[in-house]
Amino acid sequence: MTLQTIAFEKREQLKQKPNSDQLGFGKYFTDHMFLMDYDEQKDWHNPRIVPYQSISVDPSAMIFHYGQTVFEGLKAYRTEDDQILLFRPENNMKRLNQSSKRMSIPEIDEEEVLHYLQQLIAIEQDWVPSAEGTSLYIRPVVIATDPNLSVEPSKTYTFMIILSPVGSYYPQGIKPVSIRVEQQYTRAVKGGTGTAKTAANYSGAYKAQEKATEQGLSQVLWLDGIEKKYIEEVGSMNVFFKIDGEVITPELNGSILEGITRKSTIELLNHWGIPVKEQKISMAELHAYYHNGKLEEAFGTGTAAVISPIGELIWENEKLVINEGQIGEVAKKLYDTITGIQTGKVKDRYGWTVEAASKTMNTSPSL
Amino acid sequence: MTLQTIAFEKREQLKQKPNSDQLGFGKYFTDHMFLMDYDEQKDWHNPRIVPYQSISVDPSAMIFHYGQTVFEGLKAYRTEDDQILLFRPENNMKRLNQSSKRMSIPEIDEEEVLHYLQQLIAIEQDWVPSAEGTSLYIRPVVIATDPNLSVEPSKTYTFMIILSPVGSYYPQGIKPVSIRVEQQYTRAVKGGTGTAKTAANYSGAYKAQEKATEQGLSQVLWLDGIEKKYIEEVGSMNVFFKIDGEVITPELNGSILEGITRKSTIELLNHWGIPVKEQKISMAELHAYYHNGKLEEAFGTGTAAVISPIGELIWENEKLVINEGQIGEVAKKLYDTITGIQTGKVKDRYGWTVEAASKTMNTSPSL
Ligand SMILES: Cc1ncc(COP(=O)(O)O)c(C=O)c1O
Ligand SMILES: Cc1ncc(COP(=O)(O)O)c(C=O)c1O
Repeated sequence: MTLQTIAFEKREQLKQKPNSDQLGFGKYFTDHMFLMDYDEQKDWHNPRIVPYQSISVDPSAMIFHYGQTVFEGLKAYRTEDDQILLFRPENNMKRLNQSSKRMSIPEIDEEEVLHYLQQLIAIEQDWVPSAEGTSLYIRPVVIATDPNLSVEPSKTYTFMIILSPVGSYYPQGIKPVSIRVEQQYTRAVKGGTGTAKTAANYSGAYKAQEKATEQGLSQVLWLDGIEKKYIEEVGSMNVFFKIDGEVITPELNGSILEGITRKSTIELLNHWGIPVKEQKISMAELHAYYHNGKLEEAFGTGTAAVISPIGELIWENEKLVINEGQIGEVAKKLYDTITGIQTGKVKDRYGWTVEAASKTMNTSPSL
Repeated sequence: MTLQTIAFEKREQLKQKPNSDQLGFGKYFTDHMFLMDYDEQKDWHNPRIVPYQSISVDPSAMIFHYGQTVFEGLKAYRTEDDQILLFRPENNMKRLNQSSKRMSIPEIDEEEVLHYLQQLIAIEQDWVPSAEGTSLYIRPVVIATDPNLSVEPSKTYTFMIILSPVGSYYPQGIKPVSIRVEQQYTRAVKGGTGTAKTAANYSGAYKAQEKATEQGLSQVLWLDGIEKKYIEEVGSMNVFFKIDGEVITPELNGSILEGITRKSTIELLNHWGIPVKEQKISMAELHAYYHNGKLEEAFGTGTAAVISPIGELIWENEKLVINEGQIGEVAKKLYDTITGIQTGKVKDRYGWTVEAASKTMNTSPSL
């Protein structure tokens, strides 16, 4: 890693910070953002931290027409002694590059960008909220910027990191959600872009979400796009089931996004000696387990909610009520452990947390 | 249709127009562009024609993160007596709305927008090139603009129309192309976004195109995403085969984009009494027809090339040479007829052309 000098343009008039009970998700942005450009001659260059502001984009820029873009999502957490922690951020950098490969976007230097992120957070550390369940959401995103309507990879890109203080996912405490099993729409299919964190996979899912919302249900359970039988994900989360004492999650099959919370969940279960398997599982099998009384828990995993227990699954007019609509023991233990590690309340035995910035860190020399 | 008053801000210093032999595709843009905004209170509002210029977009705008966007592509052609013609543009407006429905984007008033487009072209009419095979490419596009990272439909949008003079697709005369049958990557799948003209479907295809390019082949033949057996499209075109005197094109199956050139091709063949069928056709069947000597022609259809004859299909290390690598009779007749109608050289018996603007049209009163 050879670090490029990073330019810093400080915002003159800092913004007023919102109250932590108004945060919501992705509505407020901090004072500064990180930018870096790519072209074929200079590779990734001009890393800089500037006041958060609109960017100027040509109407013919490829991002608007052909969707060549990838992104990441992770969080910074404030501990009780005012440390600021990131959770396994090197995994996000790695996944960003995996997504980029799929989308024909030039890769970034993972270590270097993580370092830039840490500098950005050091500058914005006062924006990391401290109330229970709150955090600073981090959104790295790469967009294709060539002003050219040819259907081909862009030769220029902009990489941005924006930061948004976000509220608790569970302001009223964890409550299991009701999920609609989607039979018509497909999120992703083998050979497509489902394993990449890219724009397309998200807006293509709005129609299915609309149907769930209309029925008063909170999210969609996605089945595979080929046979419409096998369970893939839930909303924008990976999904786990506890069946007869054993935890099962759909195996990575070329259309499922490999979640970092999924990975951490599997690793924790292994540490705890709770049997966990990655395997194909069909909705029909799950249904049979349910009726045999063997379906003990169901939950989603993802950065936003960490663990999202599933209380009900609606499948073709049948309602499967799981664990009497209550959060299960395993889900609860996972939630407490992961959020505990993230916020420094539970000892991090696995080396998962990385210090982003602390009050005593001196940020000026390198800027 | 109630037409809104359209504001016109004229560019002070008009651009220098490129020579028609330098045009290429989508590299040069005209002096002005059309813009219109959407919000929940005002619906689509503020239609305006302004100097072509970069737009200012918040880094958190939904277009950058979740790809909620749709677009269209059509052309304006200059006739020998300096009329400017559009080819079935009402179909593009209709398809734009169909795409929008799939992507949870508010629909536009088709007639109204066509009218705005005509006004824009009237202003930019000197940009419609006259050399053989050249035209003015028209790109309407809608982008989601909410500054909000929630994974949900945007509440605000911008609609833009930009114009680009484009060169002949066949500067050296029509030459059949070599096509690679793609076995691994998938363009689109039933339940996904393949029937919509939306960004995601294009950049997701770059990887497959890369593989074709590496082998010196010009485009990809897409198979269905479910069984990887049935033929869907070729590059960004629909595809037709002449087999034993009959023309066959894959039936619309929920993952194929319904092309306007495809539709026109089917209608012309019907008018000419050449049998044409929309049906499922597998690569294995095509291969069998080829070896029986029954595969007589193959060609793609789309706005960019109109008709693109396929000279070779490379499928699992076998090369199928079609019609000795020459353009077929039906493809040639379709090409001559459609381009003839588009440019006013062939009488338009079907009412397909619409006048966009003429030298004598008075554009100022309505502006
Ligand atoms: C489609 C999808 N699946 C799963 C996940 C969960 O991944 P992670 O645990 O890394 O947040 C995400 C992102 O958060 C996602 O977008
Ligand atoms: C994926 C795809 N298929 C087919 C076509 C052909 O459609 P049309 O004939 O309307 O140009 C296009 C667009 O041009 C396309 O993008």
